[in-house]
Amino acid sequence: MSSGTSKVQLSKDETEVRAVIEATTKAHRDKDVTAIGARYAPEIVSYDLSPPLMHRGFNTKEKQAWLDTWEGPIEVETRDFEITVAGDCAFAYGYFRLAGTPKSAGQPISFWMRATICLRKINGTWKITHEHESVPFYMDGSLRPAFDLSP
Amino acid sequence: MSSGTSKVQLSKDETEVRAVIEATTKAHRDKDVTAIGARYAPEIVSYDLSPPLMHRGFNTKEKQAWLDTWEGPIEVETRDFEITVAGDCAFAYGYFRLAGTPKSAGQPISFWMRATICLRKINGTWKITHEHESVPFYMDGSLRPAFDLSP
Repeated sequence: MSSGTSKVQLSKDETEVRAVIEATTKAHRDKDVTAIGARYAPEIVSYDLSPPLMHRGFNTKEKQAWLDTWEGPIEVETRDFEITVAGDCAFAYGYFRLAGTPKSAGQPISFWMRATICLRKINGTWKITHEHESVPFYMDGSLRPAFDLSP
Repeated sequence: MSSGTSKVQLSKDETEVRAVIEATTKAHRDKDVTAIGARYAPEIVSYDLSPPLMHRGFNTKEKQAWLDTWEGPIEVETRDFEITVAGDCAFAYGYFRLAGTPKSAGQPISFWMRATICLRKINGTWKITHEHESVPFYMDGSLRPAFDLSP
């Protein structure tokens, strides 16, 4: 295979991986739990903002319950995703801004988190097999999450 | 290439990736900043426990300063790392337990964090190009980091 062909292949895969990330954020904005779940491999291991340390498998009920904690629409914005692809393995990292009104807070919030998304091409389709989302915390004695940072 | 050959190749790469993770944790235990830095690609993008949102490039001075915040030895333990490799792209995720005595605290601490490590094979050697470490936080109103969880 010429390096030219290889480059086109890489670019196509990068485009597909970017489309998976965009589809996932759109599905969150639409609060469409089925569309969210469709992007994950059955063996998905996710490290979320809140405990426990990990989730294995996509839990429709839990995701729906989380979507229901928001009053009205959720905004999800992506920023600065860098994508690496080789063969049927890919990883991407960048930022999500999450905004909306949690029912418990009763007022709008908005903050940036870091996200790492790892994918496998399974039967010709890119699926997310691992996702890690976090906010750093201040080690200044306060230990509060750093919701005030932006990329 | 037969699937048998492919499998052997995968296993060798998995072993090499695991060795990179183990070498990095050993270098932390040894507080050897040069050995830590040797495992990272020049373009390393890291999402650390504390702000800012990201670091680009390995900063020897900053890492040395962090190592110096600990009184005596640091313990770093790895647990349950799952590794995916294809071609010159790999990702791994699992847990680190970090333990020791921060000079500021004056007493020993120990906690588990989640870690995602993404690598590229560059000139035949696996290098870490992205690292994401985090502790989840309780969304129960307290917003405290969940230092009390274990895998």
